[in-house]
Amino acid sequence: MKSDLPKVAHPAAGRTLVEWVLDSLTGLDPATVTVVVGHGAERVRERLPTGVATAAQAEQRGTGHATAIGLEAIEGLSADDVVVVLYGDTPLLTPALVSSLAGLGPEETGRIVVTTMDDPTGYGRVLRDDEGAVVGVVEEKDCTPEQRLIKEVNAGIYAIRAQPLEEALSLVSDDNHQGEFYLTDVVGILASRGDRLMAVSASSEEVAGINSQDQLAEVRTELQRRVNHRLMESGVWMLDPQRTYIDDTVVVEPGARIYPGVHLEGATTVGAGAQVGPDVFARDSTIGAGATVWYAVLRSAIVGEDCEVGPYASLRPGTVLAKGAKAGTFVETKNATLGEGAKAPHLSYLGDATIGARTNIGAGTITCNYDGFEKHHTEIGEDVFIGSDTMLVAPVKIGDGAVTGAGSVITRDVAEGSLAVERNEQLEIPGYAERRRGQRSDAED
Amino acid sequence: MKSDLPKVAHPAAGRTLVEWVLDSLTGLDPATVTVVVGHGAERVRERLPTGVATAAQAEQRGTGHATAIGLEAIEGLSADDVVVVLYGDTPLLTPALVSSLAGLGPEETGRIVVTTMDDPTGYGRVLRDDEGAVVGVVEEKDCTPEQRLIKEVNAGIYAIRAQPLEEALSLVSDDNHQGEFYLTDVVGILASRGDRLMAVSASSEEVAGINSQDQLAEVRTELQRRVNHRLMESGVWMLDPQRTYIDDTVVVEPGARIYPGVHLEGATTVGAGAQVGPDVFARDSTIGAGATVWYAVLRSAIVGEDCEVGPYASLRPGTVLAKGAKAGTFVETKNATLGEGAKAPHLSYLGDATIGARTNIGAGTITCNYDGFEKHHTEIGEDVFIGSDTMLVAPVKIGDGAVTGAGSVITRDVAEGSLAVERNEQLEIPGYAERRRGQRSDAED
Amino acid sequence: MKSDLPKVAHPAAGRTLVEWVLDSLTGLDPATVTVVVGHGAERVRERLPTGVATAAQAEQRGTGHATAIGLEAIEGLSADDVVVVLYGDTPLLTPALVSSLAGLGPEETGRIVVTTMDDPTGYGRVLRDDEGAVVGVVEEKDCTPEQRLIKEVNAGIYAIRAQPLEEALSLVSDDNHQGEFYLTDVVGILASRGDRLMAVSASSEEVAGINSQDQLAEVRTELQRRVNHRLMESGVWMLDPQRTYIDDTVVVEPGARIYPGVHLEGATTVGAGAQVGPDVFARDSTIGAGATVWYAVLRSAIVGEDCEVGPYASLRPGTVLAKGAKAGTFVETKNATLGEGAKAPHLSYLGDATIGARTNIGAGTITCNYDGFEKHHTEIGEDVFIGSDTMLVAPVKIGDGAVTGAGSVITRDVAEGSLAVERNEQLEIPGYAERRRGQRSDAED
Repeated sequence: MKSDLPKVAHPAAGRTLVEWVLDSLTGLDPATVTVVVGHGAERVRERLPTGVATAAQAEQRGTGHATAIGLEAIEGLSADDVVVVLYGDTPLLTPALVSSLAGLGPEETGRIVVTTMDDPTGYGRVLRDDEGAVVGVVEEKDCTPEQRLIKEVNAGIYAIRAQPLEEALSLVSDDNHQGEFYLTDVVGILASRGDRLMAVSASSEEVAGINSQDQLAEVRTELQRRVNHRLMESGVWMLDPQRTYIDDTVVVEPGARIYPGVHLEGATTVGAGAQVGPDVFARDSTIGAGATVWYAVLRSAIVGEDCEVGPYASLRPGTVLAKGAKAGTFVETKNATLGEGAKAPHLSYLGDATIGARTNIGAGTITCNYDGFEKHHTEIGEDVFIGSDTMLVAPVKIGDGAVTGAGSVITRDVAEGSLAVERNEQLEIPGYAERRRGQRSDAED
Repeated sequence: MKSDLPKVAHPAAGRTLVEWVLDSLTGLDPATVTVVVGHGAERVRERLPTGVATAAQAEQRGTGHATAIGLEAIEGLSADDVVVVLYGDTPLLTPALVSSLAGLGPEETGRIVVTTMDDPTGYGRVLRDDEGAVVGVVEEKDCTPEQRLIKEVNAGIYAIRAQPLEEALSLVSDDNHQGEFYLTDVVGILASRGDRLMAVSASSEEVAGINSQDQLAEVRTELQRRVNHRLMESGVWMLDPQRTYIDDTVVVEPGARIYPGVHLEGATTVGAGAQVGPDVFARDSTIGAGATVWYAVLRSAIVGEDCEVGPYASLRPGTVLAKGAKAGTFVETKNATLGEGAKAPHLSYLGDATIGARTNIGAGTITCNYDGFEKHHTEIGEDVFIGSDTMLVAPVKIGDGAVTGAGSVITRDVAEGSLAVERNEQLEIPGYAERRRGQRSDAED
Repeated sequence: MKSDLPKVAHPAAGRTLVEWVLDSLTGLDPATVTVVVGHGAERVRERLPTGVATAAQAEQRGTGHATAIGLEAIEGLSADDVVVVLYGDTPLLTPALVSSLAGLGPEETGRIVVTTMDDPTGYGRVLRDDEGAVVGVVEEKDCTPEQRLIKEVNAGIYAIRAQPLEEALSLVSDDNHQGEFYLTDVVGILASRGDRLMAVSASSEEVAGINSQDQLAEVRTELQRRVNHRLMESGVWMLDPQRTYIDDTVVVEPGARIYPGVHLEGATTVGAGAQVGPDVFARDSTIGAGATVWYAVLRSAIVGEDCEVGPYASLRPGTVLAKGAKAGTFVETKNATLGEGAKAPHLSYLGDATIGARTNIGAGTITCNYDGFEKHHTEIGEDVFIGSDTMLVAPVKIGDGAVTGAGSVITRDVAEGSLAVERNEQLEIPGYAERRRGQRSDAED
């Protein structure tokens, strides 16, 4: 992967790869779930869901060794318990496959996932007996010419009862080129003592592991397709689901309309009838029912029902727009509340501010919240009319129904219903333009 | 679909699904076109092209019933007239297929569209006689084991002469699980009296109906592909046609260059040599030849030849840019005209304004068009130089060749050639910064 | 193509089509490379890499004629030299194929690229002898019914020793419908004198020529896929490689993260750990390690390590951001340097300016660099605090540690450590809002 992040901790559609693998357990109800962690253990652990145990594999001595460590970590394991062994980098596994894998009949020792590949080069070939049971897996280098023609390969995913699994693992050897204990060897060991594994077939896509950025991108595309499919099935409209990036953690209500170039991340929610996009990024934000948000960036912002945001708006953390409020074009907000129906249509920076209902913020308005040392608050009442290009030097308070004149720098509080203005006389110098042009001509001589 | 909008009224690439179906009649020249409407009739009707009649199906009693209602609505139908029956939710039908369907020879009773499916489960299987004529359609539940193996299925699309169609429809029964009259039964009824239908084969994609948001998205992708293909064939350059969203109603001249993330909707036109995108939304707008429009939103705006718009501009309704004008970065216009070569390069709001040729609008300029009660007009002459951060408090008029000083609030008209300025003396308080830091240190103690 | 630009001069993923073809020679080490140019020769020549010779084909008399002209232009050609003949519009050729084509054994006269098509209609069919050598190419119109069934066709790409090639070319006739000399005829001429060509097989995609905007778009998609694949293999993360447009000339270091809607063009470089996108356009720009650039347009700009740019920023030519500097939301820069840690977070235009380390630029700040005649420079020192909505009327200089008051128009230099302010008293007119509403009510009567 050429990345510092442990492979299984890479995110895809809002969950890490290992979380997606754990999702495939949905149809079971496992007594315990243990993740064996090695390289980058801490970064994997912090991304695991609660209730999942971990076991540390200090040295990377192979998949058989990892499985043994995982088994040791499970308390109260009974001989007949079914142990499901999955890889952390196969996030496309489905609950249907894993449920089928784990559904052993009372007489069965275990099951193994197999898949058929057009070109099986490099994979362990599956050997079956006359009844179809798997009796061995032969690695490429040990294949006879006939075995090399087998296209059914081992996907490396098993469900085996605890006792035979432990017994077989204890017989696995590390006498091989890599000096590792391979889980794969368990199949042959079990077969040699008469324990056959039933095969569960899967598509090669479903069990594919990830070993490159390319494969990560492909798997992410498939996981995103599944998330978007689920949302569309529920009644969400998408113009181009292939260009719509929605984390699995996001809630989008039926009837919402999502345009391309939209990224919805984390704990974001979108209400019914909302239009989101084109080209919106929203993380941990709320977009209310019937709101229109387009060409905008939202981070930890709350946009109420029927609000309008954008085109070209940035709502930063602590932004709250009440019902019907507007943060329009070239408007940035941060730690700012706009009351019901309040509007900031253009070219404004509203930071550390409370703005009352129905107040209109003129174009070019700026809350001067920073004095070079710390941030101060601006409080604007209801039904206020802030003139264009008003500088509100915080801390400052504008009373209900007040008005400010265009271009004013407001440094003192304004009483309810007052007009506040800071301005000079407009002077006019006739003929200025012509004289100026003349001077320039002289200068150019 | 889980949508309030009737299915056939959903838009895709700028036309409703039913409009796309009607488009497939292009190669015919039908005496009359009648759309049978039921659920949400009004919303379907208002989206139909002129010249298309409708017939209301008050109760949803099946496709046979709908066909009968459609037939009744056609005046002056002759016994030998060919009636083409299409579904409103199959927008991928091509004129070639429908022309072939309707091209009955003088001896033919009718034709039927069939398609072959790898998995025909759930579809009515087509029965053919030795000569290949269709003599029946058997529904899944009525199939013999042999019939179930048939992969050729009925697409539900027919061309049948009026008299045999009417006679067969009168014999269709609603004695079935759904209690509906099925158009499909007509095939068997006709066959039983010796009228065989010739089969016209289509791909399963072409005749696919739409029953989910997923399928709607897929069909939209294919229709968009066709629109973009047509434009590229005519000489339009697209960097990534799969990420270019152009309504079928839009005109793009050869030699235009379209980048990804572009949405062109409604009555929009793009001239030769124009560059549009990346990331442009334009609805009902005109983009002149040689213009560059990127990272911009246009709604009912007219952009003249060789204009520059963006990056990051929003042109709202009533915007008119004459040849060579510029609405640059962080510029919003509304009901505003810029004359030839006029430029508003940065950070401006121009609303309800007329701006003369060659005038330069400084960064931060705002037309203060709203007084809290109504909107007023700003008129700026030719060759004017508006200084940065000028507030133009409308109604106000700036004469030709005039100049305004940076930071001025202009509330009165400015005469031709004058300089208008509203400003105070610049004061300087030496040592201020150090004292201020000192005070803060004290305060922090 | 319906384009003024010569076909082979069209760019795709940052190189012209003919440059991509020349790239396929990477594995050889040719003594000389000659491009035969005809239509639009000048526009092709100016896009060729240095070291590539050209030969002019004044009249378009066919591919054989063009080959002869190319041969004449090569000085010192020996009889046994291998001449590789490629088409300028087949940019998907790989070095592997061309190396295999050119790798003649000592006894071989030449090799020919063949490909198999499901529908070979319109292509010259390849005739092989019993040993598999190619002994002729028959054009569609001359095919016998049996020959028409052949699916192996001539890709038109050859490696032939100089002497037999020249001799065969001298025998090619233009006695055909188009009146052109066809290179294809060489195969038969050589065969007739006993010189057989060995066939090298390629996929039809790899040897596809381009004859429409559609095909250009497809080929561009494939070339972009190859560029992105190469970058991902090196450790670059891409959320959606299909929606990421990076020229082959761009350098992206491993560990960079690229979001969709990103266009990187020309001499752009991206450092390790940088986040670029969503929705960024960068041409000839540098993005330093660890920088975050999103929703931004960069042209000939340098963004240092750990800088923040956007959302919604435009950096124009001459912009230099030192380490940790910020050009935030609705910020435009041009010919401007920001020192280490300097910040312009919002709504500013900084043109022709030098800004010192750690200086903070308040929202709404504008360098008024243009007086209607020429551009002037603004110099701002280190640790300066520019208040919101400050107009800096250039030429002007602000000393280290100085402060400007919000809303000030600064026309004269400010000394180190001073506060400069241009402002009036704030006036308040109590009861204004109510009276104004009253007047309006009167007026409306």
